[in-house]
Amino acid sequence: MQNDNILLAQLNPTVADIKNNYNKALEYLKDAKNKNIKLVAYPELFLLGYPPIDIIERYPLIVEENISYLKKFVNQCNNISVLMGFCEFNNSNRGKKYYNSVAYINNGKIEKIMRKSILPNYSEFSEARYFQAAPFKSEDRIIKFNNYRAGVIICEENWNDDTFFEKPMYAFDPVEILVNEQKPDFLINLSASPTRAKKEQLLNNMLSHCAKKYSLPVLYVNQTGSTDCITFCGTSRVYDKNGELIARAKSYKEDFFVIKPYKSAQNIIEPLPNGVEKTLDSPKEFTLDYDWDLERTYLTIISSIKDYFNKNGFKRAVLGLSGGLDSSCCAYLLACALGASNVTGVSMPSKITSIQSKNDAKELAKNLGINFFEIPIKEMTEASNDTFNNIFEQITNVWSQYRYKEPLTFDNIQARSRAMILWGISNEFSSTIPIATSDKSELYMGYATINGDMSGGFAPICDVTKTKLFALARWMNKNADIKNAIPREVLIKPPGAELAINPKTGRPLLAEEALMPYEFLDEVIWRLENLQQKADDMLNEKFLYEKTHNLSISQKKIWLEKFAHRVQFAQFKWSIMPPGPIVDSHSIVRAEYVQPITSKLKF
Amino acid sequence: MQNDNILLAQLNPTVADIKNNYNKALEYLKDAKNKNIKLVAYPELFLLGYPPIDIIERYPLIVEENISYLKKFVNQCNNISVLMGFCEFNNSNRGKKYYNSVAYINNGKIEKIMRKSILPNYSEFSEARYFQAAPFKSEDRIIKFNNYRAGVIICEENWNDDTFFEKPMYAFDPVEILVNEQKPDFLINLSASPTRAKKEQLLNNMLSHCAKKYSLPVLYVNQTGSTDCITFCGTSRVYDKNGELIARAKSYKEDFFVIKPYKSAQNIIEPLPNGVEKTLDSPKEFTLDYDWDLERTYLTIISSIKDYFNKNGFKRAVLGLSGGLDSSCCAYLLACALGASNVTGVSMPSKITSIQSKNDAKELAKNLGINFFEIPIKEMTEASNDTFNNIFEQITNVWSQYRYKEPLTFDNIQARSRAMILWGISNEFSSTIPIATSDKSELYMGYATINGDMSGGFAPICDVTKTKLFALARWMNKNADIKNAIPREVLIKPPGAELAINPKTGRPLLAEEALMPYEFLDEVIWRLENLQQKADDMLNEKFLYEKTHNLSISQKKIWLEKFAHRVQFAQFKWSIMPPGPIVDSHSIVRAEYVQPITSKLKF
Repeated sequence: MQNDNILLAQLNPTVADIKNNYNKALEYLKDAKNKNIKLVAYPELFLLGYPPIDIIERYPLIVEENISYLKKFVNQCNNISVLMGFCEFNNSNRGKKYYNSVAYINNGKIEKIMRKSILPNYSEFSEARYFQAAPFKSEDRIIKFNNYRAGVIICEENWNDDTFFEKPMYAFDPVEILVNEQKPDFLINLSASPTRAKKEQLLNNMLSHCAKKYSLPVLYVNQTGSTDCITFCGTSRVYDKNGELIARAKSYKEDFFVIKPYKSAQNIIEPLPNGVEKTLDSPKEFTLDYDWDLERTYLTIISSIKDYFNKNGFKRAVLGLSGGLDSSCCAYLLACALGASNVTGVSMPSKITSIQSKNDAKELAKNLGINFFEIPIKEMTEASNDTFNNIFEQITNVWSQYRYKEPLTFDNIQARSRAMILWGISNEFSSTIPIATSDKSELYMGYATINGDMSGGFAPICDVTKTKLFALARWMNKNADIKNAIPREVLIKPPGAELAINPKTGRPLLAEEALMPYEFLDEVIWRLENLQQKADDMLNEKFLYEKTHNLSISQKKIWLEKFAHRVQFAQFKWSIMPPGPIVDSHSIVRAEYVQPITSKLKF
Repeated sequence: MQNDNILLAQLNPTVADIKNNYNKALEYLKDAKNKNIKLVAYPELFLLGYPPIDIIERYPLIVEENISYLKKFVNQCNNISVLMGFCEFNNSNRGKKYYNSVAYINNGKIEKIMRKSILPNYSEFSEARYFQAAPFKSEDRIIKFNNYRAGVIICEENWNDDTFFEKPMYAFDPVEILVNEQKPDFLINLSASPTRAKKEQLLNNMLSHCAKKYSLPVLYVNQTGSTDCITFCGTSRVYDKNGELIARAKSYKEDFFVIKPYKSAQNIIEPLPNGVEKTLDSPKEFTLDYDWDLERTYLTIISSIKDYFNKNGFKRAVLGLSGGLDSSCCAYLLACALGASNVTGVSMPSKITSIQSKNDAKELAKNLGINFFEIPIKEMTEASNDTFNNIFEQITNVWSQYRYKEPLTFDNIQARSRAMILWGISNEFSSTIPIATSDKSELYMGYATINGDMSGGFAPICDVTKTKLFALARWMNKNADIKNAIPREVLIKPPGAELAINPKTGRPLLAEEALMPYEFLDEVIWRLENLQQKADDMLNEKFLYEKTHNLSISQKKIWLEKFAHRVQFAQFKWSIMPPGPIVDSHSIVRAEYVQPITSKLKF
């Protein structure tokens, strides 16, 4: 009987760590030899690691190394066939330095090299910076597999079908050309495709559409793990020629995933993160029901923290615990990703901090099992106050007319003293980094202190809006590795920074008093990012908030104007934000989205 | 007599500030009407402003606005012909959202639209993110000018001649096609081309080569001013058909620049920044003689500071003055760019600060005429020390094995207390931002404190290495708007952060003791950035430093390994650096160069 096992090697590479990537590939290859595998398919650019961004521009040695390890690898293949993603020099006399290539190794030698013809260059992708797009030659993309002929597609080449996408981004559709010209028996797509909210909707529907349209099985292998802000969820898979999903690998894990393209029965369909299936047919609208995305969000952030720490040699995290939602969620995620003993939470109360907040912080830490200490910042803020008053009086001699009547200076001293303590701990204890706890809603509003809560080596929730974070907190209490860690009080009290007293209420100023209701704010963000709507459009659209609240058009306008004004100024703050995981369908994480600080926002 | 005046409108737009850009264009148009101009050529994408980066992705309203202002502008043109750069929607059913286009306005209407066919997408350029490259049709690029036919080229389309560049970046050469197919009488290039070290060498030689090769006059109009990290130097120009420069506009200024393509006599050749002419034939090698680049460096940083402040509504700067070279140079540049009264220098001595340093800071401020105040940080650092000791003791209960034997914590408290004071001043006085004073050599080494000297809203010298900064300081003393501001002592004392005592010498630790000689370090950086050399190459090459010092191969190796080790770790710090002007031929400014933090550097 003919052997028809294909291994989709769903692995987690590290960029430029060629030897490590090679060793991972080799381990799977050895296993494959023992397990009667005919063909092993590795993800796109696997030997180099994805995404390289600009590192190969300045360090060509990395590319040389990935070539020499490819040669070593070829010698190990024997009678197993392999599709291996690697980075190739472009030796022709025009074009960019490199190709994003796939080597087809057969009978112990490289039989074919396939070069990516369509290069994603938007959002988190920047392949056109250093790769040359190759002309698509369909004959180069065919490999033999027993009596069948398989057609090979590299990632983005699959994302360009004008019978699926309303407006495909590129001039031609490589899959169409390949199928028409070569009549393959099935397709294999090698990818490095990051996770995003509702991307499963696109990916599944598109691959299924492709299989059905051409009446061909489609195999898809994706990498897993994280590089800085970008996370790959794995979920390699197979569709049969009717577009039915017949096999799917694990999510967010490396997987030794064996499939038989023509025999669905033996194959396993691993579950997606809970709720994601729901998105397959869900419309594009804002909702406060985030159920469909909470496990995916959790797993994405966990992967991101784990790989940022592990791959960079960081081991421990330290963060301020205010008893509020943001820091509680960050602590939760860190404890699950790094292990509770590697996380230290510090409560740093000032005179505005309530007893409730202190208790909430303590209880959270206890529930998580993380290290917890309390240190008042009174001495530091008082010393700063004295010093500040002294220097402000001096400067007032020359800049009196510019002195604010109601400055935020003393509010910020508290946030900055706290960050100073955290960076001090990072200096004092090895491989320990402080965590920036700002969430996406507040970053949009610039409602975060530079060198304060915005400061840290990593920002785990910078792409999670406040209303979603509430949902995530509840979800984690029920479903995370550690259960019920966030105290009930944290989930019900209205968010506030506890940096200032609201003169109108005599109580600490609440965030919604300073900004606008989060439910409204988060829908503005959603509409801007997903529909590119402007204020005038939004004024005319009915918000979810308006279904449960009376909202006058003038109040709505005031909030929209406040949004525009604050976002314009927030650009300046975004430019000095630490990296953090991209989670949502769109983000303001710099790895994905950069607008000039120097610009006049129109909204 | 026929009117043959062409106006190259060398202007400074602001991204997305369409109305302002329109008004600038209109002002020049009105002037042109009074001055017998036949054709006005504006820079590439002028109505939108360059570079938009991602802003048009999320705010299509900006593009709508630039279209409606283009229509308004057409109505103002009457019998003047105009080439106007603008952003156009791509309404076809494939491709990116927009085109980078030029409207040819003639007889009061848009006669032709030309779409850029080659999109730069490397270094500081990211046009392939949102623009569609259009097929190049030579017939669309011809306009009539009296009895002549002019061919229009958009910026990067000119940078692709395989008889000039060893390896052009794109598959075809639009200029060659245009000339061969249409036989124009002269060429006009509309550009938005940033300044870089030795770029004049490339630009001049390439345009001259082009004119000579095709025996055609070449006109080149460039924008001026800065957007965030990128600066455009202007220097619009004309070459005759022999490749001789016959006219050149001012550098780093808006210029109403009238030329007659066929009559050199009336035209003016404005000077380049001093020394830049020297680079036209200079080889690619490292030198400590920076004369050829100092005025350009100065003007680039001045433009960058001015436009970052003016266009963003910032008015004042505050910075720490240590008496060292970095802060002295920053203060100098700020005083020249913003006016001395808008700059406040604060001396913040600690117990390690020498009297000499305090005096140097004071003298510098006096020489510059900036505001100067002194505030000791003793109280703040002592309060921090107490608080830190308290929390460190607590944490040692759980993490004792991770506590460093020789931590940098208390060194950094000084730097962070200072930054805290500066951010406090920024909170207390309106439109005032703190300045990050780190230089390029120290950033490469990660020899800068997060939330300390690395912290600020803008980093003026982040792309100037230390040896070049010494040269710049001397140059500014002689040539800047304010003379002799940097005290002699600052120019001769060896750099040091004055944060710690060197136990070996009993004196404050010098930077070269902690790192390696700057002359050596700066050549390593230069070789890495300009030649992409690896450590092995460098070991075998003779450094400038080795011509004047005995350097054993083992010591050289130690320094190179230290470099590799420190650069790997510095990635983490670069990710949270504020923006600053790109000056050098290559930089680590994030607007130009990003490598994954999560990666294994090979060097």
